[in-house]
Amino acid sequence: MNAAASGVASGPGDPGPRPRRYAFLGPEGTFTEAALLQVPGTDAAVRTPMGSVPAALAAVREGRVDAAVVPIENSVEGGVTATLDDVSFGAELRILREIVVPIRFVLVAPAGTELADVHAISTHTVAWAQIRRWVAQHLPDADYVPAPSTAASAVAMLDGAGGVSTEGLGYDAAVCSPVVVAQHPELHVLAGDIGDNTQAVTRFVLVARPDAPMPAPTGADKTSLVVPLWEDRPGALLDILEQFSTRGVNLTRIESRPTKAHLGDYFFSVDIDGHIQDDRVADALMGVRRICPRTRFLGSYPRADQRAVPVATHHSDAAFIQARSWVDNLKGQ
Amino acid sequence: MNAAASGVASGPGDPGPRPRRYAFLGPEGTFTEAALLQVPGTDAAVRTPMGSVPAALAAVREGRVDAAVVPIENSVEGGVTATLDDVSFGAELRILREIVVPIRFVLVAPAGTELADVHAISTHTVAWAQIRRWVAQHLPDADYVPAPSTAASAVAMLDGAGGVSTEGLGYDAAVCSPVVVAQHPELHVLAGDIGDNTQAVTRFVLVARPDAPMPAPTGADKTSLVVPLWEDRPGALLDILEQFSTRGVNLTRIESRPTKAHLGDYFFSVDIDGHIQDDRVADALMGVRRICPRTRFLGSYPRADQRAVPVATHHSDAAFIQARSWVDNLKGQ
Amino acid sequence: MNAAASGVASGPGDPGPRPRRYAFLGPEGTFTEAALLQVPGTDAAVRTPMGSVPAALAAVREGRVDAAVVPIENSVEGGVTATLDDVSFGAELRILREIVVPIRFVLVAPAGTELADVHAISTHTVAWAQIRRWVAQHLPDADYVPAPSTAASAVAMLDGAGGVSTEGLGYDAAVCSPVVVAQHPELHVLAGDIGDNTQAVTRFVLVARPDAPMPAPTGADKTSLVVPLWEDRPGALLDILEQFSTRGVNLTRIESRPTKAHLGDYFFSVDIDGHIQDDRVADALMGVRRICPRTRFLGSYPRADQRAVPVATHHSDAAFIQARSWVDNLKGQ
Amino acid sequence: MNAAASGVASGPGDPGPRPRRYAFLGPEGTFTEAALLQVPGTDAAVRTPMGSVPAALAAVREGRVDAAVVPIENSVEGGVTATLDDVSFGAELRILREIVVPIRFVLVAPAGTELADVHAISTHTVAWAQIRRWVAQHLPDADYVPAPSTAASAVAMLDGAGGVSTEGLGYDAAVCSPVVVAQHPELHVLAGDIGDNTQAVTRFVLVARPDAPMPAPTGADKTSLVVPLWEDRPGALLDILEQFSTRGVNLTRIESRPTKAHLGDYFFSVDIDGHIQDDRVADALMGVRRICPRTRFLGSYPRADQRAVPVATHHSDAAFIQARSWVDNLKGQ
Repeated sequence: MNAAASGVASGPGDPGPRPRRYAFLGPEGTFTEAALLQVPGTDAAVRTPMGSVPAALAAVREGRVDAAVVPIENSVEGGVTATLDDVSFGAELRILREIVVPIRFVLVAPAGTELADVHAISTHTVAWAQIRRWVAQHLPDADYVPAPSTAASAVAMLDGAGGVSTEGLGYDAAVCSPVVVAQHPELHVLAGDIGDNTQAVTRFVLVARPDAPMPAPTGADKTSLVVPLWEDRPGALLDILEQFSTRGVNLTRIESRPTKAHLGDYFFSVDIDGHIQDDRVADALMGVRRICPRTRFLGSYPRADQRAVPVATHHSDAAFIQARSWVDNLKGQ
Repeated sequence: MNAAASGVASGPGDPGPRPRRYAFLGPEGTFTEAALLQVPGTDAAVRTPMGSVPAALAAVREGRVDAAVVPIENSVEGGVTATLDDVSFGAELRILREIVVPIRFVLVAPAGTELADVHAISTHTVAWAQIRRWVAQHLPDADYVPAPSTAASAVAMLDGAGGVSTEGLGYDAAVCSPVVVAQHPELHVLAGDIGDNTQAVTRFVLVARPDAPMPAPTGADKTSLVVPLWEDRPGALLDILEQFSTRGVNLTRIESRPTKAHLGDYFFSVDIDGHIQDDRVADALMGVRRICPRTRFLGSYPRADQRAVPVATHHSDAAFIQARSWVDNLKGQ
Repeated sequence: MNAAASGVASGPGDPGPRPRRYAFLGPEGTFTEAALLQVPGTDAAVRTPMGSVPAALAAVREGRVDAAVVPIENSVEGGVTATLDDVSFGAELRILREIVVPIRFVLVAPAGTELADVHAISTHTVAWAQIRRWVAQHLPDADYVPAPSTAASAVAMLDGAGGVSTEGLGYDAAVCSPVVVAQHPELHVLAGDIGDNTQAVTRFVLVARPDAPMPAPTGADKTSLVVPLWEDRPGALLDILEQFSTRGVNLTRIESRPTKAHLGDYFFSVDIDGHIQDDRVADALMGVRRICPRTRFLGSYPRADQRAVPVATHHSDAAFIQARSWVDNLKGQ
Repeated sequence: MNAAASGVASGPGDPGPRPRRYAFLGPEGTFTEAALLQVPGTDAAVRTPMGSVPAALAAVREGRVDAAVVPIENSVEGGVTATLDDVSFGAELRILREIVVPIRFVLVAPAGTELADVHAISTHTVAWAQIRRWVAQHLPDADYVPAPSTAASAVAMLDGAGGVSTEGLGYDAAVCSPVVVAQHPELHVLAGDIGDNTQAVTRFVLVARPDAPMPAPTGADKTSLVVPLWEDRPGALLDILEQFSTRGVNLTRIESRPTKAHLGDYFFSVDIDGHIQDDRVADALMGVRRICPRTRFLGSYPRADQRAVPVATHHSDAAFIQARSWVDNLKGQ
């Protein structure tokens, strides 16, 4: 298995049979771990849950792990700002892969609990936001107890020896991902698939250091960028977008984020169709970089849906090669 | 005082001396209440704290209050998605005013507590994110206990009779806004202004029903829109932005949000310079609405910073009037 | 027959049965007269040949004729600058109709002349340019004698009494349009259809005073404009073109002409698809007029080819009406 | 003197002291010869007048001369279509230099002629068009006799032995350039500087074969292109212009010309600021060539007015170099 396929850099001085090390936004049982397990070879790897996105990415930067999986976008809640900001402002990193995971929620409790016994529910705020309708319908009077992750409240019921109890926890049931139940079958599922939006998915990214080998183009790729807007004037964003549109490069995601300097200063987190090895993408990146010299490249990697995007003849590699050789010939005269 | 100045509709059948009723994202003592109090006349109004942004906006829609103040954007954290989504998808509302409030955090505890006594701190997750550096420096080992608002953990220490205690709360100190301390001077301030970014501000909006009288143009105005992107193709967003740029209309904020239908479908929450009574803005809105027939108008209202934006001669009202009368004359021939 | 159908204003004080009066670029027998005869009702009208385009248009402006037919564009030679400049700089006029005439040339001489007898040929310079290949092949050694029109050299051979002679003319044969031969069958055709480009056509326009009733929209119309470029800077022309493209208005012709003030100052003579009564066209004209306040409208009239141009839904009149009423409602609040 | 300074290719196999050979649009005494004489070294060169622009350019293509000077644009009459079409459709050529010549007209006759004696005037049609106002004022009843060049009618009066006569010519006076008078002082000047527009200039170009060394960049350069429009659709021209505007490349001239195939098919003759050795120009050419693979490069050469055009930082060579090296580094990973 080559490095690109595994999604992780081995590096020239790799001693060989050392197992890969991955960080992920923990604790165990979160959707992030489910995403990590979709990366080939990770079942045999060392997988370290981290308490936060910044902690997971710091572990990558400091070389304590080879790569990390963190959430970047949820189809219901939108961009994961902790991730967007950290990859944009911290030391440079590279996205090697995207993983899309369906988001399902289950309500768990100690065996013997009935729905009618549930007066307080604990889970992460984001999960709570995504099950509001179900709660309003089935447990309208239940109190909400915030938790630091979607797995934490469920895991807190476990005594590590097969026992499950909510005693002293301040809640009677927890909302978590089915992954937790798969890992801890002693949890009793009171209700399954209780998410308001049954199509909900979260997109995760596998992130490594910038010296990781870039995944080869597959014909169905995506490139991620961070573009600090250069000026507050009519058309500044337009200038950037034109660099893409005049080369037929499609934008699949654009998200504005505050630079944190002062209100009204933004940077843009952008995904475009195509790979930096595609001429139209490389050319568009040059254009953007000229306008915004602090533009950051976050990586070119395969689209999770493997859907190839049609490219007009005059934006094809062949058209670029023909045009470049024409100009080069003329310049050589 | 006229309705536009108060920021709230009186309506034709207004009985007169009834006090205005306002909802705000509670509990009391939050930055949102501080924002509300900047609206003229609100000190004498009925002010009702609500448990969530949707609850506050529902109170407006159902006529239980005249208007509500909710946060919409933070200079550090970015857009407040609960607000952006609710005003975009729920029944139509109108923004009448924006209010910018500096965000300051204080650490409070019962009198007699020292920093060294603090082993666990409670506050809202967003506040916790904004004091990380101070905590790392002064209380690196403190545990974090999430709370539903920036005021809740502090208020929970109060017995209502002047007593302050953390007994049974699971934390030793709380982080809140100075507003809480102003209202409850019995709270002991362990450390003041502990936010990592001392320039941090949050922008709030005063929201009413669509029949509220629109604030008159001041020459330094802003217009808010919701634009569902019509198509996933190169240049779709560009087409929208061109409707603004060809009329010299500046974009002050653009935020993409998932439509929640499926990953990759976005709508855009947009603020532009100018008032719908300005010809260039009205003309741009027509252009956008043609392309995206589901475009939603959220209101034209004065900029909080009262800064007028220069307008080129050929985008002025005079240029529009001259051009329209020219075409109208020709069409009449 | 109504005025729009005849293409000419009758005017309120029209005494009635007076015949229409038309000027055309003469002399008789030119392609321009052929174009004029395609206008309904002109066979019964008074038709006055004029010595030049400016003379024909002056006759219109001064009320000596109701309208004039002048050439505006040739498929081989390009724009007719005398016409483009006169309608752009002189007192305002209106184009009521376009007429496309195939350009065919014949070589005529007195009866009895053989090709071998032809040592000098006379015709208008433009005609000479369009038969070069035929001449090079059949009469490579013939001298060229310039003439003021395509009919003049042929007509000069006639004695008015049925006689044809080249004596004292300095040439042996003339090149003219088949129209001359139809009118003067005593001319002997030495060679027919000798034009290098057998697809060549000339586009003529019927021009009247600005108070002439504008032709009603047919669904396959054209609008002509004169746009003085406002500034010599990157993108000035682009700004104008964007006013068309953002409304889906197609450009069918664009020609730059010197303003004659100094080298590098241009105005643009532009034809676009659609009628000023089409909302997208009226809106685009407003946009152009805002940017270039000296923009001149030359008329909306049916396309000679009657080909309707498809219009995207969001550029249709319905989309404009819907968007305008939306904005008007909002402004009325 | 190097080849670039002389404006003409010497070529590797140049035998040395052979004099340069130039063609120009003749006859002698035209403004074109005046333009040619501005090219350094041409006073000592072989100068051959040609009967037409195509003949002059054919002499270049066939190697009979080293270069030719032909008119390309007049500040009053606009583009010289014979030149625009020939360099666009014929075998490839290169423009090495532009020369701007003021256009002045004088009325000449045999000595002893008075204005009152002039009943017929002969000159080229273009010259006639440019002295209309003077003629209307001073000789309103004079007939016009067309001539093949601005020098021909004057030269025809000369007997080659110092005599001047109009006998048998059919006109009494001729309009020509002061160059003719300088060469033939026996011509009597009846009236000087009779042009309607005393600011009139004509721009000429020095044209050589494509293997001529390209003039080095001077910082105040111009590049000429021929761009066949790829498609008749809204925005096709816009796509081309955007390739220039997104790189800050200014258009100094754009002229549409019929392709001669059928009415409504155009190509564009375009001049832009800058030299193909400037990165922004080379990059824009690549973009245009991708869209229109039949785009033709006519040359980069110094502006006649030597006026340097300011370039924004993000369009400078430095910005291109920085951006290209950034992308190249990333692609190499």
